[in-house]
Amino acid sequence: MVSIRDVAKIAGVSPATVSRVMNETANVDEEKRQRVLNAIQETGFKPNEVARSLFKRSSRIIGMIVPNIENPFFNELAKAIEEESYRRGYRLTLCNSNNDLEKEKKNLSLLDRMNADGIILMTNQEKMENEVHKCRIPVVMIDRQLEGGGESACIQSDHYTGGRIAMEYLISCGCEHIVHMRGPLKFSSARRRYQGYQDVCRERGLQESVIDCRYDYEDGLNKAMEILEKFPQTDGIIAANDMVAISVYKVLIRKGYRIPQDIQLIGFDNISLSRLVTPELTTVSQPIGEMGKAAVEALIRAVEGKEAIKKLFEVKLIKRETTLNTSNEI
Amino acid sequence: MVSIRDVAKIAGVSPATVSRVMNETANVDEEKRQRVLNAIQETGFKPNEVARSLFKRSSRIIGMIVPNIENPFFNELAKAIEEESYRRGYRLTLCNSNNDLEKEKKNLSLLDRMNADGIILMTNQEKMENEVHKCRIPVVMIDRQLEGGGESACIQSDHYTGGRIAMEYLISCGCEHIVHMRGPLKFSSARRRYQGYQDVCRERGLQESVIDCRYDYEDGLNKAMEILEKFPQTDGIIAANDMVAISVYKVLIRKGYRIPQDIQLIGFDNISLSRLVTPELTTVSQPIGEMGKAAVEALIRAVEGKEAIKKLFEVKLIKRETTLNTSNEI
Repeated sequence: MVSIRDVAKIAGVSPATVSRVMNETANVDEEKRQRVLNAIQETGFKPNEVARSLFKRSSRIIGMIVPNIENPFFNELAKAIEEESYRRGYRLTLCNSNNDLEKEKKNLSLLDRMNADGIILMTNQEKMENEVHKCRIPVVMIDRQLEGGGESACIQSDHYTGGRIAMEYLISCGCEHIVHMRGPLKFSSARRRYQGYQDVCRERGLQESVIDCRYDYEDGLNKAMEILEKFPQTDGIIAANDMVAISVYKVLIRKGYRIPQDIQLIGFDNISLSRLVTPELTTVSQPIGEMGKAAVEALIRAVEGKEAIKKLFEVKLIKRETTLNTSNEI
Repeated sequence: MVSIRDVAKIAGVSPATVSRVMNETANVDEEKRQRVLNAIQETGFKPNEVARSLFKRSSRIIGMIVPNIENPFFNELAKAIEEESYRRGYRLTLCNSNNDLEKEKKNLSLLDRMNADGIILMTNQEKMENEVHKCRIPVVMIDRQLEGGGESACIQSDHYTGGRIAMEYLISCGCEHIVHMRGPLKFSSARRRYQGYQDVCRERGLQESVIDCRYDYEDGLNKAMEILEKFPQTDGIIAANDMVAISVYKVLIRKGYRIPQDIQLIGFDNISLSRLVTPELTTVSQPIGEMGKAAVEALIRAVEGKEAIKKLFEVKLIKRETTLNTSNEI
C-alpha cells in the first residue's frame, strides 16, 4: 500500500506538505501543489479517512439514531438524511435503537467516542434528556422537543394546524360523529394535534370523542375495535398516523363497513404507503424529505458553531379516496 | 479533555500499558490492570474510537450499501444487519445508493478509504463487478451473485424452490390460467424463480404465461393492466414480489375483480407489509432476519480471514387471504 511518505518522496516535499495539499489546511506554493497532486495520481494514493479525521479533528461522520428503521416515517426520514449528508460530504452511521432506552444511551455515547461530528436523534424515550445534556457533540432532535432544552435544534412540523385541518375537513365532508385517535400525550406532536381537534370542537359546539392510541399498527387494531364498541355512531375517524389508519382500515373492512361510504378516514404523515393501499388514504402530510434535509443543515450549523434556525414545517391536506368530499373548499 | 497520558500518569504505568488494558491486546498483570481501570474511572477518560481504530488497524465499522432504504425488503434487511452488527460490537455506516451506479461506486471507495472492516452490498447494478474486484476490503453480497465471483460471500435464498411452490400452490387452489410475473432476468433471483415455474409447467403439461416486470410497485401497476389485456382468462397471478403484488391488487380491485374469488394472488419475500394489507397477502417467505444476520457473520469471517460458509436459505409458503385453499396439502 502506498503511504503518504511515498507520495512525499516522489513529489520531493515533506509529508506535512502532502497533508496540507490534501486537506487544504494551509496555502501551498502552486508549483509544489501540482507536484503533490501528480504524485498522488501517479501512485494511486488513497488517503486514509480515519487518519485524516484525526488530523482534521472532524470525522465527517453524522450519527443517526432511529427507534425503528422499519417504521416508514423514520425510514423515509433516514433516506432524506442520508442523501443530504452524502451531498454535504458526510458519512452516516446508522443506529437502530429498537425503542430500547439502554441501546439508545449506548449509541449516543459510542457516537460521541467515535468522534462523530454530531447526532440526529429520533426517540420515543422521555428519559433521554439527561443523556443529550451529557453529550459533548451537537444533537438535533426530530419531532420531539426536550422539556428542559439542551438539543442543538428541533425539527418539527405544525401539528396543531394538522389536528385542525383533519377535523375541519371531515366536517366539510359531512361527518357528524368524528373520533380523534390521540397519540401518546408524552409527545408534543400528539398534544398539539389534540389541541387542534379540541379547538375546532369548541368553536363548532361539538362534543369530543377521543380514544388514546400508540403510534403503531398493532395498537391501531385494538383501538379501532374499541371505537366501534364505544362510539357506534362514528362516521369519521382521525387516525393517530398513517400506520394506525391502515390498521383501522383493516378492522372496518372485516366488520363490513365501507370506506368512505360508511366511515370516512384520515391519516397523518403521508408516508409513501398511504397512496399504495386501496382505497388510497386521505392524510395530513408532513414534509418528510424537507425535514430530513433541514436536520442535516441544522446539525452542520451547530458543528460550525452557528446559531440554530427555528422553523416549524407546514403540513398539508392530501385528499384521496378515504373521504367523500373532493372539492377544494378548505 | 483527559488524555491517555493523564491516565497513565495516575496509574503509574506507561501509555502503552493503558492501551493494552483498553484494547485487551496483551495480558497485563492484574494489579496493574486494576490501577489502570481505576484511573480510567477516576478521570472519566473516554478513549477516542478513531484513535483506537488506527491503533488496532480495525475501525469496527461495517459499511452497508442499499439501492433504496425505503424499499421494505432492503429496510428489513438493514434492520437485521444493524442489530447483528451492534451485537458483535461493530458500527454500521449506511449508504443509500438510490440505484445510482456512480453513487454506489463512490460509496464503495469511500468505505474502503475510511478504513471500514468490510462492506455488505445490495445492488441492482450489473456493472459493480469491477468495483468489487478492486475493493481492498471484504465485500458480502446479498441476493446477487457476481458473474466472475470476487465477493467474499453471497447470501441468498432458494429462489428455484420458491418459484415451484408458488406455482404448485396456485394449482392446488384450483387455478387453471396462472400468469408468472417474471423479474428482470439479469438477476439470478428472477432466473431461478422462473425456472421453478417453467419446470412445474413442463411436468404438468401446462402452457406458460409470462409477463416481464421490474421488482417495483410502479412497474407492477402497468404490468397488471397488461395481464388483464393479454391473458383475459387469468385466474391466478404469481407476482414478482410483494410490492408488485400490492400494485396488482390495486389494479384488480379498480377493475372490479374480487381477490381471491375471481383471481388468486401470491407474492414473494414476506415483507411485513404483506400482512398489513387487506386481504392479507399469501406469499413465499424469505427469512430476511436470518439472512441479515448471516451477512454480518460472513463478513466478520472474511475480515478474520476465515473461509466463507455457503448456505442457501430456505423459503416457505405463507398462506393468507389472497388464495382460496386453506388446507395443508403442500
